[in-house]
Amino acid sequence: MKQSSLGNLVQPFHVMELVKAADTLNNQGKPVIHLSIGEPDFPMPKPVEQALAQAISEHKTRYTAALGLPELREAISLYYQTNFQVQVPAHQIVITSGASAALMYACLALINPTDKVLLTDPGYPCNKTFVQMAGGIPDFVQTQEAQNFQPSWADLYKQWTPHTAGVLLASPNNPTGTQLGAQAMQEIVQGVSTQGGFVIVDEIYQSLCYDRPAQSVLQVTGAPSEQIPVVVINSFSKYFGMTGLRLGWMVVPDTLLPAIERFAQNLSICPNTPAQWAALACFTPETLAICEERRLVFKVRRDFVVTALPKAGIELHSTPDSAFYVYAKSPYDSERYCRQLLEQALVCAVPGKDFSEFRGSEMMRFSYANSMDNLETAIERIRLFNNRQLP
Amino acid sequence: MKQSSLGNLVQPFHVMELVKAADTLNNQGKPVIHLSIGEPDFPMPKPVEQALAQAISEHKTRYTAALGLPELREAISLYYQTNFQVQVPAHQIVITSGASAALMYACLALINPTDKVLLTDPGYPCNKTFVQMAGGIPDFVQTQEAQNFQPSWADLYKQWTPHTAGVLLASPNNPTGTQLGAQAMQEIVQGVSTQGGFVIVDEIYQSLCYDRPAQSVLQVTGAPSEQIPVVVINSFSKYFGMTGLRLGWMVVPDTLLPAIERFAQNLSICPNTPAQWAALACFTPETLAICEERRLVFKVRRDFVVTALPKAGIELHSTPDSAFYVYAKSPYDSERYCRQLLEQALVCAVPGKDFSEFRGSEMMRFSYANSMDNLETAIERIRLFNNRQLP
Ligand SMILES: Cc1ncc(COP(=O)(O)O)c(C=O)c1O
Ligand SMILES: Cc1ncc(COP(=O)(O)O)c(C=O)c1O
Repeated sequence: MKQSSLGNLVQPFHVMELVKAADTLNNQGKPVIHLSIGEPDFPMPKPVEQALAQAISEHKTRYTAALGLPELREAISLYYQTNFQVQVPAHQIVITSGASAALMYACLALINPTDKVLLTDPGYPCNKTFVQMAGGIPDFVQTQEAQNFQPSWADLYKQWTPHTAGVLLASPNNPTGTQLGAQAMQEIVQGVSTQGGFVIVDEIYQSLCYDRPAQSVLQVTGAPSEQIPVVVINSFSKYFGMTGLRLGWMVVPDTLLPAIERFAQNLSICPNTPAQWAALACFTPETLAICEERRLVFKVRRDFVVTALPKAGIELHSTPDSAFYVYAKSPYDSERYCRQLLEQALVCAVPGKDFSEFRGSEMMRFSYANSMDNLETAIERIRLFNNRQLP
Repeated sequence: MKQSSLGNLVQPFHVMELVKAADTLNNQGKPVIHLSIGEPDFPMPKPVEQALAQAISEHKTRYTAALGLPELREAISLYYQTNFQVQVPAHQIVITSGASAALMYACLALINPTDKVLLTDPGYPCNKTFVQMAGGIPDFVQTQEAQNFQPSWADLYKQWTPHTAGVLLASPNNPTGTQLGAQAMQEIVQGVSTQGGFVIVDEIYQSLCYDRPAQSVLQVTGAPSEQIPVVVINSFSKYFGMTGLRLGWMVVPDTLLPAIERFAQNLSICPNTPAQWAALACFTPETLAICEERRLVFKVRRDFVVTALPKAGIELHSTPDSAFYVYAKSPYDSERYCRQLLEQALVCAVPGKDFSEFRGSEMMRFSYANSMDNLETAIERIRLFNNRQLP
């Protein structure tokens, strides 16, 4: 029995080693503070929790249609109209097991073996695996701090080759907490479509933004179509606080829908059923009010963190305006720094390696998905550590 | 934007057209009886439902480890020991989003592009897609009614080539409701391992068997290892009645574990969290008693159906002893027959096309995941239809 070459190729999350070390310290009674977390520190909004409990008591636990509950697809369509003033027909919305399954279907439906796909560096570590599983070759576009770590069409075009099939972007992005502007987005979609390529836009952190209203590429392009080669990825994980429920969605052109449906039928059967019923409660005024309140909590933390980190000796060149991450220069080699910060200051932050091929060892990610108390303590520990005032 | 060749290749479930027609009839007030269903007609066992509700109220809704809750992996290990007298270390058990994700990880970790993989015909329609998504080529082994639609090692060996990487079997199988005997299983594992190949055994219908105790290939081989190139697939969907919860598991050799973990991390993050906590309640005496009771209900239906169908004009050559399916000869072309049976007799059964490349048009599948009342009415309708006594 031989392992496949893809099995050898796919990368682990390097941070796991660090997280294991953090767990060991915790188990020794040493109170590690995690600035490493990729999910909100809030429970699900109460109305969603209640809807979930109700779905279960009503025995809504059997398979659904592969593309998801029609009611939920309708609700998301209405959400785009109400919150983003954009018309997306419900039939173009597909419910998936998290943004993860949506990224998988999109890559499988769009990438041929040996196709190159442009990915931003830094970016979400799993993106390269989705591309590779479809047989594609990740082609990293190095983005600049001065450009908020987002590419322009010129940056992408410079790397476009006859073998390039398309581009996968995230706005807001992980690990950077930065967005693409509407105009840059428009230029990218226009440029890529001239090349006959596709644009996958991961909007999983869409509504977690703090300095201007949430936006979608769909506001720029309208609903995807044969002429608008865009696939949008989204999720209930972050803004709606449903990470462990594994529920997301995608918006696809009509022409791609049959293939996406066949992948969904064959590879997953359907997304989790009670979660789908629960998600219907996400778009009620009550839930949206809770989520907005939480967004403001994140904003307060963001404001604190971007002020406090530089005072603690962590350089920031730009202000992250979205998600719950700060991507910053590490005082020295980030793997060594994060290891020592953990062991000596009991703060767990993430080295850049998982997010970046180019400058991973220079950079690191802080997550502010943690309480204000913990953030304050953690950053004070970082300050002391950086000033070598620790024992 | 061009769709990938895999997107073109992957097959839809042809039965969906028939199911849509059935829905239309139902909406017209015509009471179609479904013998087409691939999931139990029972709700989740009460203790599992309660455990699920409790997990939600305790806010167990965040991401878990990619390989699943350690507690659940332990519980399954104990289940193998208690119910199957086989030692499977918990760390070799991986929790997945249904058998579906388990099949996906197994195929991705074991199949290289252009590898041939032996699949039984008839078999579960999605198997070919899992093979194809890994770049492999499904190579169908035609099985015989006289051999309970299960292959011997001789059958597989006849089709083994230098490009064959392994074989994917299901016991009990869908659509046939038949099992592989322990000896045949042993010969297959031995034969395949001599060839340096792998054996994936899908045991999703494991405990739904009616004429002898439930069995596992692991009873024959012991836990998988470098020397025992077996991957076992299982699920909470069928015996435990948790289809919509999307939870399953796999048993893998140590050597394959790191690759499986990397796929799980990258492609799914983790399985549904509340479902994992709920599944812990599956292995309690209360739940197992409920599941056994249901198994006996299925047995009564099986006994009825295999007696009544031949009297209604549907030939059976063998007695299905597991799952909840009967695979039988269609009186004439199965697509036409199933269509007419639906329209004229309001019974929805499934043509063989989705399950078989070779003899799909000759064969059809009846599911007895329906109440005894409905089964009696449906088979009476079939009898009348076959006798052309309908208007
Ligand atoms: C940018 C980005 N995309 C996609 C995902 C996948 O999230 P999920 O599958 O929970 O929706 C994540 C999770 O951290 C992410 O950061
Ligand atoms: C033989 C077989 N394997 C796997 C599956 C997938 O089931 P699940 O993903 O719900 O565990 C099915 C579902 O019908 C099946 O019949």
